[in-house]
Amino acid sequence: MPDALEYARSHADRFRDELFDFLRIPSVSAKSEHNDDTAEAARWLAGQMSAAGLESEVLATPGHPVVLGEWRGAGDDAPTILIYGHYDVQPAEPLDLWASPPFEPTIREGRIYARGSADDKGQLHMHVKALECWLSGAGTLPVNVIVVAEGEEEVGSPNLLPFVEQMRERLACDAVVISDSAMFDEGLPSLLFSLRGLAYLEVHARAASGDLHSGAYGGAVGNPAMALARMLATLHDEHGHVAIPGFYDHVLEWDEATRASIRALPFDEAKFRDTVGAPALVGESGYSTLERLWIRPTCEVNGLLSGYTGEGAKTVLPAEAMAKVSFRLVPDQDPRRVARLLEAHLREVRPEGIEIEVVELHGGNPWRADPSGPMFEAAGRALENAFGAAPVLVGEGGSIPIVGDFERVLEVPALLVGFALPGCNMHAPNEWFTVDNYDRGIGALIRLYEELATSLR
Amino acid sequence: MPDALEYARSHADRFRDELFDFLRIPSVSAKSEHNDDTAEAARWLAGQMSAAGLESEVLATPGHPVVLGEWRGAGDDAPTILIYGHYDVQPAEPLDLWASPPFEPTIREGRIYARGSADDKGQLHMHVKALECWLSGAGTLPVNVIVVAEGEEEVGSPNLLPFVEQMRERLACDAVVISDSAMFDEGLPSLLFSLRGLAYLEVHARAASGDLHSGAYGGAVGNPAMALARMLATLHDEHGHVAIPGFYDHVLEWDEATRASIRALPFDEAKFRDTVGAPALVGESGYSTLERLWIRPTCEVNGLLSGYTGEGAKTVLPAEAMAKVSFRLVPDQDPRRVARLLEAHLREVRPEGIEIEVVELHGGNPWRADPSGPMFEAAGRALENAFGAAPVLVGEGGSIPIVGDFERVLEVPALLVGFALPGCNMHAPNEWFTVDNYDRGIGALIRLYEELATSLR
Repeated sequence: MPDALEYARSHADRFRDELFDFLRIPSVSAKSEHNDDTAEAARWLAGQMSAAGLESEVLATPGHPVVLGEWRGAGDDAPTILIYGHYDVQPAEPLDLWASPPFEPTIREGRIYARGSADDKGQLHMHVKALECWLSGAGTLPVNVIVVAEGEEEVGSPNLLPFVEQMRERLACDAVVISDSAMFDEGLPSLLFSLRGLAYLEVHARAASGDLHSGAYGGAVGNPAMALARMLATLHDEHGHVAIPGFYDHVLEWDEATRASIRALPFDEAKFRDTVGAPALVGESGYSTLERLWIRPTCEVNGLLSGYTGEGAKTVLPAEAMAKVSFRLVPDQDPRRVARLLEAHLREVRPEGIEIEVVELHGGNPWRADPSGPMFEAAGRALENAFGAAPVLVGEGGSIPIVGDFERVLEVPALLVGFALPGCNMHAPNEWFTVDNYDRGIGALIRLYEELATSLR
Repeated sequence: MPDALEYARSHADRFRDELFDFLRIPSVSAKSEHNDDTAEAARWLAGQMSAAGLESEVLATPGHPVVLGEWRGAGDDAPTILIYGHYDVQPAEPLDLWASPPFEPTIREGRIYARGSADDKGQLHMHVKALECWLSGAGTLPVNVIVVAEGEEEVGSPNLLPFVEQMRERLACDAVVISDSAMFDEGLPSLLFSLRGLAYLEVHARAASGDLHSGAYGGAVGNPAMALARMLATLHDEHGHVAIPGFYDHVLEWDEATRASIRALPFDEAKFRDTVGAPALVGESGYSTLERLWIRPTCEVNGLLSGYTGEGAKTVLPAEAMAKVSFRLVPDQDPRRVARLLEAHLREVRPEGIEIEVVELHGGNPWRADPSGPMFEAAGRALENAFGAAPVLVGEGGSIPIVGDFERVLEVPALLVGFALPGCNMHAPNEWFTVDNYDRGIGALIRLYEELATSLR
């Protein structure tokens, strides 16, 4: 291991240059215009795995390909870990809010600004580099390794579960390791005990067959933008509770011990508010900010579009209005059931003269870990060694739907250890990841592989 | 007059070619990128007026210019009419809904499809051609004529009132004639007795300083799109009445005779519904469709924009949401007062954690005519002669804010005689105007000038 760590130190500049090359490829999986870029990112990543000493393949799926890397030189007696990450990124819009171009990585004050720097190219690349440090620095690895890097995480991983099911035997392992999340704070490494799930839908409201003059027709024909607003307004009550009948039926109420451990975390509410720049923090009444983020479900509008949105005043009565509506779910909510509940509720409150269509875009199950036992202890030692502080257990408001799928299909536990920082603008303009966490994180992963070699044996 | 009518018949093809040239100029006043086109349309129109035998000038304003045409050869004893129209057009978006390009006029089934064909280039051009028919066909005109063509009607005529006030003496006249409205039905010429006014605003809601990841922050930070929906939902009650306190304070309840005359019109509700392609006609309870359109005020959402609106699912918590909100007003509502009422109401219902900004884009007063007396009778004879049917009195749901201003500043009545047809898609894709109404309308205007020469004397 000292050789691997030394290799990391002496090649840090090259690693970062390579990361920048990765970040320059605009692999936006949601937009078909970027299909060539997404394919290019897969090929580039396979090349990096090969250079690191893994056998790599780009495996086609009905969507964007999976990049598979393997090294099985530790032998049958050594444990096997499966490292999962994704090489696709969120759309970068709105582009005018970026201080530097989203696909031209730029370092400012120790932060690498680029779409995908935190989510998840940067963290995936750290694993590939940590593997290279072992294989090129020490000539070996203490564990067998399978790397599964997909290109559709940001669109709900529609093809990954079938892939894992088909490849179940080849992907047989002792644990799944994922770095696609954040630390609780700078210098405070963290292990995840929960993830929220997701149900994401598009709601369309229509009245007339085409846009109309708001003077000539206004008052006598339904307005789908107004109707949509009225329907969306029924999704919450005045206390911030989701008001869709049946929504909370399967929500687990967490025990007091868990809620107490969340309260014990060094959470600075004022700093959090400053980070997001909001006039006040608001949410479901009866819960703290961290509880609202980690253990309570949400209903959000992610996008609205109707009528004329350009400069000036166009007196149009829109024919259509669209809302993107998503839910963050907690155990044991089911995304398909929640989607059905939303549609049923909207049909119930739909104003007269308006037709609606509800389209499910994607969903993912919520997840919980069992943080007791040797795997979490092994990870704790690796993180404390690299960061000088014992890790805390944290929840995560975001969703990585594949985590639960991996556990179920491969029948092994998952370990979620992330290195992004709060406020890093995942999914927003000016996404960043610190140079320091990139470098320290590679060291932590080098240690983690060795710790897991023992603890999983 | 027979010579003028003969001239119209023998030059109909050229007139239409010239109209097409006019329609090809994308004089979209709301968009600064079209400033050169709008200026070009003004120059082109001045050229047409000169060719018709008028003295023409393009007069600068702080915005788009006014084109002024004059012919005062009828002498001091003859009346003077002021013809008002506008050479600017609405934006053509959404472009993909046009069957032929908006600025490439195309005839299909007797209709000229182009942005501005009905509103108002086509109708303004008919006046210019009717004047040419008199001056070139008959060598004279029975009335003195002033043509005022502005380029900012579609953005609320911000500079026309100051222009009229400044030019008050030069614009002295006996009546204002405006063709910017529609007939009640094909073959049924119409004279307007009312216009609705307009108040148009933009509402911005903001929470965080930038877009956030809906997983990492959702549930603990305000959602401006959801908040905007909740605020917009309070603008109407469940009966379709506007629920802004004080909104109806100055609304005149029309007498039973007027409501009865509206009921007597041959209005085909099913055909109207088919024309707009709506599943049902909805509006304020207690009023018929025509009453909702002509004598009742409205509140509409004209546009919505927030967050991610592209293809696929982006899990963003938007930082901002925008709605364009407009009101059609009836006598004696005041647009500035209504704008203040909206802002006060929104501040009252604004959810916690959300900041709002309300921007007034423009407003215009409602208007009513007195349809008794010789001017309406003169117009009735001209229309009956050209169309073979006596005109009906109709209201108009749209707004021509300058009408009331002309009456007040010049102290003369306005006559609104329009030739568009129901369903002509003013302000919407696939705007059209019939070739037949263009040709017949020129004949009607030739007759109207002569009728007014007698009746206004």
